[in-house]
Amino acid sequence: MTVELISVGTEILLGNIVNTNAAYLAERIAVLGLSCYHQSAVGDNEERLEEALKLALSRSDIVILSGGLGPTKDDLTKEVTAKVFGKKLVEDPHTKERIQAYFDRIQSKNGITGNNWKQALIPEGAAVVDNHNGTAPGLILEGEHGKTAILLPGPPNEIKPMFERDIAPYLNRLQPEGIYSKMVKVCSIGESRAETMVSDIMDAQTNPTLAPYAKTGEVHFRVTAKAKDEKTAEALIEPMIKELYQRFGDKIYTIEEDVTLEEAVVELLKEKNMTVTTAESCTGGLLAGRIMNVAGASAVYNEGYITYSNDAKEKLLGVSEDTLKVSGAVSADTAAEMAAGAAKAAGADAALSVTGIAGPDGGSKEKPVGLVYVGCFVNGKVRTEEFRFTGNREKNRDYAVVRALTVLREELICL
Amino acid sequence: MTVELISVGTEILLGNIVNTNAAYLAERIAVLGLSCYHQSAVGDNEERLEEALKLALSRSDIVILSGGLGPTKDDLTKEVTAKVFGKKLVEDPHTKERIQAYFDRIQSKNGITGNNWKQALIPEGAAVVDNHNGTAPGLILEGEHGKTAILLPGPPNEIKPMFERDIAPYLNRLQPEGIYSKMVKVCSIGESRAETMVSDIMDAQTNPTLAPYAKTGEVHFRVTAKAKDEKTAEALIEPMIKELYQRFGDKIYTIEEDVTLEEAVVELLKEKNMTVTTAESCTGGLLAGRIMNVAGASAVYNEGYITYSNDAKEKLLGVSEDTLKVSGAVSADTAAEMAAGAAKAAGADAALSVTGIAGPDGGSKEKPVGLVYVGCFVNGKVRTEEFRFTGNREKNRDYAVVRALTVLREELICL
Repeated sequence: MTVELISVGTEILLGNIVNTNAAYLAERIAVLGLSCYHQSAVGDNEERLEEALKLALSRSDIVILSGGLGPTKDDLTKEVTAKVFGKKLVEDPHTKERIQAYFDRIQSKNGITGNNWKQALIPEGAAVVDNHNGTAPGLILEGEHGKTAILLPGPPNEIKPMFERDIAPYLNRLQPEGIYSKMVKVCSIGESRAETMVSDIMDAQTNPTLAPYAKTGEVHFRVTAKAKDEKTAEALIEPMIKELYQRFGDKIYTIEEDVTLEEAVVELLKEKNMTVTTAESCTGGLLAGRIMNVAGASAVYNEGYITYSNDAKEKLLGVSEDTLKVSGAVSADTAAEMAAGAAKAAGADAALSVTGIAGPDGGSKEKPVGLVYVGCFVNGKVRTEEFRFTGNREKNRDYAVVRALTVLREELICL
Repeated sequence: MTVELISVGTEILLGNIVNTNAAYLAERIAVLGLSCYHQSAVGDNEERLEEALKLALSRSDIVILSGGLGPTKDDLTKEVTAKVFGKKLVEDPHTKERIQAYFDRIQSKNGITGNNWKQALIPEGAAVVDNHNGTAPGLILEGEHGKTAILLPGPPNEIKPMFERDIAPYLNRLQPEGIYSKMVKVCSIGESRAETMVSDIMDAQTNPTLAPYAKTGEVHFRVTAKAKDEKTAEALIEPMIKELYQRFGDKIYTIEEDVTLEEAVVELLKEKNMTVTTAESCTGGLLAGRIMNVAGASAVYNEGYITYSNDAKEKLLGVSEDTLKVSGAVSADTAAEMAAGAAKAAGADAALSVTGIAGPDGGSKEKPVGLVYVGCFVNGKVRTEEFRFTGNREKNRDYAVVRALTVLREELICL
């Protein structure tokens, strides 16, 4: 069973809004085990919407249209869909009542205008899906040709509850075989290298399949199986996951879809009952910010330091003047002293330090832009790593943060 | 001249990422005065990509494909485009050199793997657009049939600089009349309010036009003129900018496209020869990280503090135990003491503090999730502000950072 998405709205074509609905629907559809091979966006234009819908119906079983169900003349999704399916628009008394009740509830100052009643019109034979957060109803229109159109309102706060409550159960009832997947997330290795390590699997893959996704400083592999039920899928996926563990070992930090690297690190710290602190120069708080975006990070993090100037490195972290003079602020020695000093100052069991040249200025021949040192203090021992990043200032700092987390993780799993 | 967008990547179809590239490209294309009637997304699948590209070429003059230019086997955009245009893939020595230089620069431990060289292959006759932030080159392929394909890499930090530097000028050269625009960026005011204040202009607009874009805690207005040359465009744009200054006054922090709020704040600090520090609880380093993403921020920022625990607030910032007990860690009093204490500890002229409940947990009836206090110390005086945000943890922290910067800016421009 294939599903296709059409996002309707000139604001999408003009780039006035980011199409988060498409990402939301796509993810939900994938998780429901349905295949989606096409997404498209068209404006509030009758002719082009008709073309897009006909094309979508020609190649997919179910077409989900979002947007264009509003009360204005621009809003054409329902009208065009009715035309393509050869249906008349008729007034739905139930929806008319609901719209009246909605306006009573919000006590709209403007009252109901004539065009609001347009939203009570539905294509003959369509199933109405109530909208609990707005006036436009959702609609499911099953055509005689075996194809189905599902019309959903555009506002995210209307489409999401409607999808969860009514559309997801509807879609789930339709399928004999579903798609199930696991995400295997790998750090401490580059994308090309990681892919080379599984190229034989990727060449030979049928069911389950393996797909790599490069993230900043990480590689994610999605293992996807097609099966009649979840248990059968798990039996297909399990050997592949085992094989990936064989190859990547503890470079795999999670096989959970929604676990991030920083969550994995915070989890490790919690397990080991350890606290961590940070001392940042070029990343200037981003590393701490990343750790603290984990809900509940307060259990492992109390305080941290941003030490941009040499003075601050001496004063807050106790980095020696000598080290700063001889090795320089951007050096392994300074990174080591920063990490050890931060742990001491914060009374933490572990500490990460970052010092480097994020760019665009400040580089030299020996110490070019992108040169970053990470220091990692764990239980009395300090490890340092040198990195040479090649992005702009922002990207270099993002990479530095991920690498620092990766180094800490490597140390923690050895304990 | 019509432009069409094809986003390539299974991660888009699966909803693993939100397609921000499409919104970015759509906005830039609209601003360049080109019409875009279709956007679509396809996975890393040869057959469907070929179909999508053929369809797009049949109805649009220029097709911009983003993504699928990586080194892996999945990445097929270049191969499929070459096929559709009837071109062979040939090695581009310049690109090969650039990739070699890229790897030399980053001194990759993994070295260059065989598949990295795949990125040096280009369709015969294509113009190469250098990628200054990654390995995959951009490509412009003008077909004999008068249609053009533009291939751009997927990562936002690669596609954006490439588009600004080379693709936008290329597209502008194709048109008889150019499109010129200025971005007027406004803070310290809500979106609805800001729009209401210019609704008469927006109703009456012809050339130049005015379009609002809501950003987190800011509103940007794009003033766009269509004219035969830049000088004529400037003469059209200038009165509109003047009018906006009349209405928004010093709430306008820049009229430069690429100046951010944090850059404007750092610039103000430099002008006034002042230094700043930060003391963060719930934002945990994000505010400092944002300030320090400004190149040259080291001139105004030496050190900062992340004080998550009450102990850290007392120890590093000298917040009194009494205040923490009586008013609580999330209070205007604590925010005030944090800011004053941070300025003193860092010997800085100004200080920003943030303390709040980012969520999802930790809220109460009196102090709900989203309650955030910002403290701002400038030259001996402290101002505090209370905010009540309604997003998730990440969004609440983003808003807190922008509001803090806004408060500091308001204080600085009064000096």
